[in-house]
Amino acid sequence: MIRIAVDAMGGDYAPESNIVGAVKALQEKKDIELILVGREDAINAVLSGRDYDKNRLRIVHAEEVITTDEEPAVAIKRKKDSSLVVGMKMLREGEADAFVSAGSTGAILISGQVVAGRVKGVKRSPLAVIIPTIHGKALLIDGGANVDIRPESLVQFALMGSLYAEHAMKIENPRVGLVNIGVEEDKGNALVREAYPMLKACSGINFIGNVEARDVPYRAADVYVCEAFAGNLVLKMLEGVSMALFEKIKEVTMTDLRSKTGAALLKPYLKSMKKEFDASEYGGAPMLGLNGLVVKAHGNSHAPQIRTAILQCVGFYENDLKNRISESIQAHKPEKTSKEES
Amino acid sequence: MIRIAVDAMGGDYAPESNIVGAVKALQEKKDIELILVGREDAINAVLSGRDYDKNRLRIVHAEEVITTDEEPAVAIKRKKDSSLVVGMKMLREGEADAFVSAGSTGAILISGQVVAGRVKGVKRSPLAVIIPTIHGKALLIDGGANVDIRPESLVQFALMGSLYAEHAMKIENPRVGLVNIGVEEDKGNALVREAYPMLKACSGINFIGNVEARDVPYRAADVYVCEAFAGNLVLKMLEGVSMALFEKIKEVTMTDLRSKTGAALLKPYLKSMKKEFDASEYGGAPMLGLNGLVVKAHGNSHAPQIRTAILQCVGFYENDLKNRISESIQAHKPEKTSKEES
Repeated sequence: MIRIAVDAMGGDYAPESNIVGAVKALQEKKDIELILVGREDAINAVLSGRDYDKNRLRIVHAEEVITTDEEPAVAIKRKKDSSLVVGMKMLREGEADAFVSAGSTGAILISGQVVAGRVKGVKRSPLAVIIPTIHGKALLIDGGANVDIRPESLVQFALMGSLYAEHAMKIENPRVGLVNIGVEEDKGNALVREAYPMLKACSGINFIGNVEARDVPYRAADVYVCEAFAGNLVLKMLEGVSMALFEKIKEVTMTDLRSKTGAALLKPYLKSMKKEFDASEYGGAPMLGLNGLVVKAHGNSHAPQIRTAILQCVGFYENDLKNRISESIQAHKPEKTSKEES
Repeated sequence: MIRIAVDAMGGDYAPESNIVGAVKALQEKKDIELILVGREDAINAVLSGRDYDKNRLRIVHAEEVITTDEEPAVAIKRKKDSSLVVGMKMLREGEADAFVSAGSTGAILISGQVVAGRVKGVKRSPLAVIIPTIHGKALLIDGGANVDIRPESLVQFALMGSLYAEHAMKIENPRVGLVNIGVEEDKGNALVREAYPMLKACSGINFIGNVEARDVPYRAADVYVCEAFAGNLVLKMLEGVSMALFEKIKEVTMTDLRSKTGAALLKPYLKSMKKEFDASEYGGAPMLGLNGLVVKAHGNSHAPQIRTAILQCVGFYENDLKNRISESIQAHKPEKTSKEES
């Protein structure tokens, strides 16, 4: 039995979407046990009348809710009885194996590191984001959790991302690329220039060198490694440019009768292509290297996305990724310890 | 008369494309004087038989050529008699007002700062890149010259970019946005968090706050300010995602008869849209804050692009941008001096 806690209160359509998604996942998978964390009365109101296995779903009451308007670090300190903090505590105390939340991204990222806590040896816990490319899915790590890091952390991201790509995404011997502003070894800022030889020397990964942003949508690598500032720019540009271009295409196709006819004919093809390029179809983003898996679902997740995020956790556990990550981090300790991180 | 030096030897199609482009610009504009820098015999061979005003074109011989394979810093030191170094020297010594090169980007960026030299007070000289958005052109600064900078430099980039957008791109009261991973004031890494209040306090710009990468293609700002690592990622993602999507569209439209018919009807509309999104149509990228204007043309420039890059210099001088930049930098000196830069 994999015990998956679900933040009932996080996200734009909470609690309904989260609870309905949880019930769907429960109906589908027999080897999971779900723990809905949040206001008991609100959860019971949505559960009422639904058909599910009551032996595999329980509620853990949490009185408070952290909203996206709140300053994450402050909210986590103040709202100890929030669904987010209570769920993260369950990971730390081993009462759950995984935790899914569609709540405040900032609050998830911080509480993951400070409440759930990191696996021994992990310096920073990155957000791994599955991204679309024109040649299938790839993984970008770190997509938003840690800025201003040391090069040692990039090596750990590469190790964790490799394991996730191999075992959860089923990409054999995944090619790890360092996101950089040129392909030559000496290109980039101090961080990536220092990380390059460390990645090259690391036996736990299939490092293929630097990858330019231009080649990211072509799947130049299976795992794109970067710190979170760069990672967020890459993610948001991928999203923004695709959205903007599809909008523009829609606009130009309204020009006249000829374009409208062409557009009507092409519509189903473009629609499926657009869907393929929509990262929100891929479920949640796993935060790796924590005491238990945290999956950050999109804030605008509906029940189907929450269901996907919950089912994602199953693959993680079936493939023993938590222990694999822990072992890999121990096996590839950096030679010198970092000054900045502890 | 504006004296514009042109690197005859730089770029994939040199020297022919550069010389033919120069001759075209010369025929078009009567108030420019061109100086072709490079191997005299090679230049004369291309000029031979062409019709142009010989009083406004002269050759300055330079024996060597810096190639894109060479390590830029080393090449600049060793090849003092290269077309690139000779051209940059002409700027420093006031023998030319502007210099256009399609040569090695790295070598242009370094020789701009160390050979041509910066205007008094300018800490780093950024590359300003005109980028396409779905709502017209915007400016990204720095697009590739300076990584690992201090926040004071971001303020200078904002000042210089604003002046360029206003006077060369004719955008009134340009909105300056700081490229960041969230819109809130405290978002981002140490660099942008420190720069934010400085930009907010700077009276010389119309600062609108942080801009997320997702909104870059929507022209959320007229001037996007960032250091060069972030800037290059944004630029290359804009380029890469557009290219990849257009390729993918081409692929899906080949599916069957229906899609082929639709594609045939839409072709001209998509083609003009694609062209609109092709940054290489915009001429060269100006490097600002130097002793004279340096315009970096694309390495794959043909004669029309070189012509555009040369004519760009005219607007720069007609609008007195060199002096405007110098005055603006003096008027908005940072209060505390930077540790890192001098």
